[in-house]
Amino acid sequence: MNRKELISQIKQKQSFLCIGLDADIKRIPAHLLELEDPVFEFNKQIIDATKDLCVAYKPNIAFYESMGVSGWNSLQKTLEYIPNDIFTIADAKRGDIGNTSNMYARAFFENMNFDAVTVAPYMGSDSVTPFLEYKDKWAIVLALTSNKGGLDFQKIEDKNGKQLFEQVLETSQTWGTSENMMYVVGATRAEKLLEIRTIIPNHFLLVPGVGAQGGSLQDVATYGMNSDCGILVNSSRGIIYAGNGSDFAEKARIEAQKLQQEMAAILIEAGL
Amino acid sequence: MNRKELISQIKQKQSFLCIGLDADIKRIPAHLLELEDPVFEFNKQIIDATKDLCVAYKPNIAFYESMGVSGWNSLQKTLEYIPNDIFTIADAKRGDIGNTSNMYARAFFENMNFDAVTVAPYMGSDSVTPFLEYKDKWAIVLALTSNKGGLDFQKIEDKNGKQLFEQVLETSQTWGTSENMMYVVGATRAEKLLEIRTIIPNHFLLVPGVGAQGGSLQDVATYGMNSDCGILVNSSRGIIYAGNGSDFAEKARIEAQKLQQEMAAILIEAGL
Repeated sequence: MNRKELISQIKQKQSFLCIGLDADIKRIPAHLLELEDPVFEFNKQIIDATKDLCVAYKPNIAFYESMGVSGWNSLQKTLEYIPNDIFTIADAKRGDIGNTSNMYARAFFENMNFDAVTVAPYMGSDSVTPFLEYKDKWAIVLALTSNKGGLDFQKIEDKNGKQLFEQVLETSQTWGTSENMMYVVGATRAEKLLEIRTIIPNHFLLVPGVGAQGGSLQDVATYGMNSDCGILVNSSRGIIYAGNGSDFAEKARIEAQKLQQEMAAILIEAGL
Repeated sequence: MNRKELISQIKQKQSFLCIGLDADIKRIPAHLLELEDPVFEFNKQIIDATKDLCVAYKPNIAFYESMGVSGWNSLQKTLEYIPNDIFTIADAKRGDIGNTSNMYARAFFENMNFDAVTVAPYMGSDSVTPFLEYKDKWAIVLALTSNKGGLDFQKIEDKNGKQLFEQVLETSQTWGTSENMMYVVGATRAEKLLEIRTIIPNHFLLVPGVGAQGGSLQDVATYGMNSDCGILVNSSRGIIYAGNGSDFAEKARIEAQKLQQEMAAILIEAGL
């Protein structure tokens, strides 16, 4: 999916919601466990209940990988089930030397037809550029993450006071464009978005950490939006585990709808 | 495998060689392609031909992941085929928020019984510590990599002139011990090993980049070894693709043996 199509979906659905499909066999409703592929069945019902409310789904690849071959099968089936007009993100945090990142790009873009993959920047240019060689596909580079360890290195300042995540934003911009790169910026650092927008005014930001992790949607929009909206806000656990009975999908819909309605109000106010 | 056992293997085999199993379906000998599982057959023959010469095998996970479910099956079979007294490294460069790194640890340590996983440090402590909670298992943290992009961020200096990879070494040391953590340091930066040894005198280093990528084994040993040997030197393409006819495994053995003999001389000189 290209940038224009993504923006069009945001306007049409009045939503910039991304739903994280972190399907954990230990947390999905008990009544699904009897089925042949409980993880796919869980995802399928979540997708059916929320697909009109979100513009993106983001399976967290670790959850599938931890289930071995059956997990990869569930993931593949989930990808095939997601409607084509919804943006798909492999939350994989991959990144290796060039010939190896090539292989990861093949795995997610060719075999599974994801629109985007999250990528760790530590190994620099050749660990990211292989993901940029696919038309209408995206690399989403980690910049400032909202986890506890995010503070260990990302805010280290160089001699000129520039923090590591700022260097990542500046340097990586030269590898691609706002048509094939986005950045991960955690919602619990919402005030940082203002600063980030001075470096990358045009790129889309993928913002996790709203909901279960405690970030405020309004703050994220206030500090992070640009004239094309420019943000995808992710919620995973707050939506998909809102219930754990037979009505889990309805409960998920209720939570997704709350966020979507808040987003619609924000988009209207922004004239989008 | 614990540290003591690894050191014992090094002394017994007079080798600190790690062989990278980067099995690429596009590069393995044509006569294998008719078989049911060409990738496993390739690995099996490489293992049979080299298992007395190396102390570790390092499958590059991207190569298997790029082949989908069949790749994961080949990887699982390969792991089961590697003798128990050989150290196994999942070269996966994983790393995510705590609950997600937990899932990656489960995938590689529980489902596949690897001894070690390579981990990217950008997301900090909670992205690495879940890998340290398994007895006799290891996290191998990226410090200074030998690829072109390795220079983009890893050598950025802070206000005190400390480079990012040095900060990674210092900070991450507090997460584990030299019994459950190693570091990746590329061979093309061999002179840097001396500096690195002042920060982490005891930890094992995994050193890729000898052979096809041009690093010198003698330099790596001179600057990187400690009194327990303390280094694993990896070679992938230089060994496994030494030949591509029906004698590929013999050719691989010849290349592995050259390195092992050089290593034996180094170990003897070091009194190990």
